[in-house]
Amino acid sequence: MQVDLVTETDKACEELIFNHFRERYPSHKFIGEETTAACGSSELTDDPTWIVDPLDGTTNFVHGFPFVCISIGLTIGKVPTVGVVYNPIMNELFTGIRGKGAFLNGNPIKVSSQSELVKSLLAAEVGIKRDKLTVDLTTGRINSLLFKVRSLRMSGSCALNLCGIACGRIDLFYEHGFGGPWDVAGGALIVQEAGGLVYDPSGKDFDITSQRVAASNPLLKDAFLEKRQ
Amino acid sequence: MQVDLVTETDKACEELIFNHFRERYPSHKFIGEETTAACGSSELTDDPTWIVDPLDGTTNFVHGFPFVCISIGLTIGKVPTVGVVYNPIMNELFTGIRGKGAFLNGNPIKVSSQSELVKSLLAAEVGIKRDKLTVDLTTGRINSLLFKVRSLRMSGSCALNLCGIACGRIDLFYEHGFGGPWDVAGGALIVQEAGGLVYDPSGKDFDITSQRVAASNPLLKDAFLEKRQ
Repeated sequence: MQVDLVTETDKACEELIFNHFRERYPSHKFIGEETTAACGSSELTDDPTWIVDPLDGTTNFVHGFPFVCISIGLTIGKVPTVGVVYNPIMNELFTGIRGKGAFLNGNPIKVSSQSELVKSLLAAEVGIKRDKLTVDLTTGRINSLLFKVRSLRMSGSCALNLCGIACGRIDLFYEHGFGGPWDVAGGALIVQEAGGLVYDPSGKDFDITSQRVAASNPLLKDAFLEKRQ
Repeated sequence: MQVDLVTETDKACEELIFNHFRERYPSHKFIGEETTAACGSSELTDDPTWIVDPLDGTTNFVHGFPFVCISIGLTIGKVPTVGVVYNPIMNELFTGIRGKGAFLNGNPIKVSSQSELVKSLLAAEVGIKRDKLTVDLTTGRINSLLFKVRSLRMSGSCALNLCGIACGRIDLFYEHGFGGPWDVAGGALIVQEAGGLVYDPSGKDFDITSQRVAASNPLLKDAFLEKRQ
């Protein structure tokens, strides 16, 4: 696809990460962006499964825009249990373990305490599809939300947007149609461990395999969902 | 205005910078965001004039989003002659002197060599006005451009978007209705000294006082203007 750049770097990094985990955890399973692209879809099972995006923000990487990261998530019984997101350009390491909190470079982080939509900073992305229906839906949502929130940011990295929610730099985030579970497996747990909520943009429960995600602090969820429709 | 945050930090920084320059260059003039806000509009004359935004990306600063900078430009005979843009979060110092090139932390920078719109990364901003006409125009332009470019980024800093053009991280940028000449005085010269073009989004000559700016490398200008209409 014209707008979905795949670089040799992605593939080399994914291989490196998977080989490392395979040595240590030979019984675990693996789901990765590049492996899935090469071998077809990978089903998420109850087994311990490492879900890896070796390079989230590939377009940014190609252009030198600083929002790029490695995203790693571990699910056990399909439940996100460990999350690691690292931006090597800004040297920011976001981590989370279920029940143990979320951290940025080792320091505890938490979501913002903002409760008013009109004072909230929203992150969203335009995705990679460029058919008229998708583009019209995307810009229609933005149009509607601009009357409700303070401003809009687009970083180009789904995992780093989730981490932005986790550390309170942004208050609201949604994205439709991202690549796969590797974009959210690490970041979603980090948001939850930072006191935030991850949910489907419809308001239903978050499904890691659905390619739809929304996140915020608990105070903003209801107002966000109401205005986003 | 609800979405245009002004902090004490802005005012303190502007005073610090102006006092510093006044000691060294007592005959020079000064135009600053905070001074203008407090004292009404400042006319740009042929005298050497320092045009300063002590904190571009105020919303980002308040929220902790890392695209914030100090922007300083010097015009002589209304011609931008010196530009300095510093992002203290990412420790990136962009500089330019007319005829002497543009630099990032002392290393020469140049605009991208991208010649195809479809492979170009676009930066734009939603601005601070939230009336229906402005928001509809803003999202209408985004809708139209999404069919033509690779992807869209919104950083929330006009000066840093210009520096992004200058160092080739982004290929195209436009913004309507930003705060004033202090948002562009430094960055515009840095783009030009990096081999880029700064122009009015209509295609006319750039006017530093117009609150409208577009920038790209020379190869993309015509295609960008054609598709942006």
